[in-house]
Amino acid sequence: MTPIRAGSVGRVIPQTQLFDQPLVLESGETLSQWQLVYETYGELNGDGTNAVLICHALSGDHHAAGVHSDEDRKPGWWDNCIGPGKPFDTDQFFIVSLNNLGGCSGSTGPNSINPATGKPWGPDFPHVRVEDWVESQRRLADVLGITQWAAVIGGSLGGMQAMCWAVRHPQRVRHCIVIASALRLSAQNIAFNEIARQAITSDPDFADGHFLDRDTVPRRGLAIARMIGHVTYLSDELMGDKFGRETRAVSDDEDVIFQIQSYLRYQGEAFVDRFDANTYLLMTRALDWFDIAAAFDHNTPAAFERATARFLVLSFSSDWRFSPARSREIVDALIAANCDVSYAEIEASEGHDSFLLPVDRYHAILRRYMNGISKHPAVRENIGDR
Amino acid sequence: MTPIRAGSVGRVIPQTQLFDQPLVLESGETLSQWQLVYETYGELNGDGTNAVLICHALSGDHHAAGVHSDEDRKPGWWDNCIGPGKPFDTDQFFIVSLNNLGGCSGSTGPNSINPATGKPWGPDFPHVRVEDWVESQRRLADVLGITQWAAVIGGSLGGMQAMCWAVRHPQRVRHCIVIASALRLSAQNIAFNEIARQAITSDPDFADGHFLDRDTVPRRGLAIARMIGHVTYLSDELMGDKFGRETRAVSDDEDVIFQIQSYLRYQGEAFVDRFDANTYLLMTRALDWFDIAAAFDHNTPAAFERATARFLVLSFSSDWRFSPARSREIVDALIAANCDVSYAEIEASEGHDSFLLPVDRYHAILRRYMNGISKHPAVRENIGDR
Repeated sequence: MTPIRAGSVGRVIPQTQLFDQPLVLESGETLSQWQLVYETYGELNGDGTNAVLICHALSGDHHAAGVHSDEDRKPGWWDNCIGPGKPFDTDQFFIVSLNNLGGCSGSTGPNSINPATGKPWGPDFPHVRVEDWVESQRRLADVLGITQWAAVIGGSLGGMQAMCWAVRHPQRVRHCIVIASALRLSAQNIAFNEIARQAITSDPDFADGHFLDRDTVPRRGLAIARMIGHVTYLSDELMGDKFGRETRAVSDDEDVIFQIQSYLRYQGEAFVDRFDANTYLLMTRALDWFDIAAAFDHNTPAAFERATARFLVLSFSSDWRFSPARSREIVDALIAANCDVSYAEIEASEGHDSFLLPVDRYHAILRRYMNGISKHPAVRENIGDR
Repeated sequence: MTPIRAGSVGRVIPQTQLFDQPLVLESGETLSQWQLVYETYGELNGDGTNAVLICHALSGDHHAAGVHSDEDRKPGWWDNCIGPGKPFDTDQFFIVSLNNLGGCSGSTGPNSINPATGKPWGPDFPHVRVEDWVESQRRLADVLGITQWAAVIGGSLGGMQAMCWAVRHPQRVRHCIVIASALRLSAQNIAFNEIARQAITSDPDFADGHFLDRDTVPRRGLAIARMIGHVTYLSDELMGDKFGRETRAVSDDEDVIFQIQSYLRYQGEAFVDRFDANTYLLMTRALDWFDIAAAFDHNTPAAFERATARFLVLSFSSDWRFSPARSREIVDALIAANCDVSYAEIEASEGHDSFLLPVDRYHAILRRYMNGISKHPAVRENIGDR
């Protein structure tokens, strides 16, 4: 048996929660029966004050930490941050991580069976908004007996869910950690998502979304969508350092290509094997449509005035998809709304993807902040960069 | 008859020049017979000292100024800059603008007939490099009796041609104007080109490049390629100002989309009607492979040490595809090579596309610089920003 590495939560078993109470979505459509798959790490304490919710981003899932078997070659997507002694310390916190509704890793989504037809939903799966995810997460919290999260945490699209929690359920969120996120997408962000969607939907194998029925997969379109995303998640600087203009020989039709071409092709291919095209469309649409102020007459401080959580907002210097300027907009709105907020811009060269990486100062700040929550569960404390 | 607008060169007639002398390309392949289509504006003076070469960028062509008929709704692509009294003043200069080899507007390219097969070249058209364009332009200059250009001018990929002229034919270039360009592409730039090419080649209608034979056009792939390019040519700021998060209703299948989505779809569609997919692949590959120092042991100053031209280098503050930092690299290398160089970074919000727009300070600098050339054809003069 492979020994579990120090700092790892070890082997974890995903759980599935079925919900019989209908969920009325923001679109007006209703899911009568639905399920969420989730994992937990650590133990809920006696007074239920140590629960932490991790919200995933565009292509994430419930498997944030540990391994599913000894043969697992890769741990969960945020394993560097979650575990005993890690910034999200499972010796102190009970951490919940789920696959969002509309996902493709076990929660109800386009690949699930539509009870009305007996066939996969495919493109007919309802549009899902960030608000719907928060509502579904709230119901999961109820099932788990969590009346108030010590913290709701997310990067990118996950940060939007964290903000939405703080605004919609102020009494149920003590701390809100928003990493590399934004109050709403910019036109340029929407543009990249639009092109990614066009790549998917214009692939003939997409078959108007009914590709499962036809036993096809829009491999080419989904790979291109992923490549577009990937380039925007990395910084120009990192790509220069990592690949520069290095070339490599390839066989057959082309003589020599740049390393960056080879890398992107690999990334695109690998993604197709693990992700669903309809879910990709759904997730990017949720991203596009999120606007923290939409329900508040487009007045962002008015939205945050409802929040009682303490906020920690973090951004990364080289992130151009969700730049530090976008995080400063969050901070400014929180200050205008008289909310408690700490902010740090982390120097990191890895672009938007930095939020997934063990950047020293980033993890030090998270660790210090989480320790503060753990030691003074009901008391707010200060950290630097205010 | 529609009166020609003041400042316009009026109606122009494209010319075609056939070349019987074989052209050996950088790839080692040879074009035995080939042609260039070009336009000229203004008159060559008696001593032949007032000729200016305009080099086009990725999707440009020979039609830089004026109109082809009274019905023409749009003038040439740089009409705001070329004409009587304009920065490139046709009362003073004889301006030559051509469609590059491998293009799709009349010069020999993938849509031309391959004499060996009697069918269009399509994907079998040889790879063309920036150096090949310069060589073909040199032969055109010989035919036109131009022994020395007063200036070779280009933006983006056109700027690469201008630099290449100054390095390979120092005696034939008096001034070299390099706008929004780079010594070589970054990994991020190559990445965007790669994704655009993937979009084209993965479209089943591309048919491995033989789409003409099959009477198809890879519309979807080429449209996506254009959309990717378009987003990277505009600035985040401009897209925010122009589109923001405004929405519009569309008919049928989707209820409401963002304006930026609608705009991109239109841009993609419009491009497909005027551009060839094989040419797009060829042009982006030429961009990727250009490196001013490649033939000089990757020593950029060593390349420029051959140049005797005076250089004007311009960049735009919001251009993130060819950022001011890339232009400063050109300037630094020119200084290291002891070349004469003036540099200005222009404040403009339109991103890379700024080089095509009538930005006041930009046009003022071009006008002043060109006036200097005109008044002192053989004497170097100074302008600001040195």
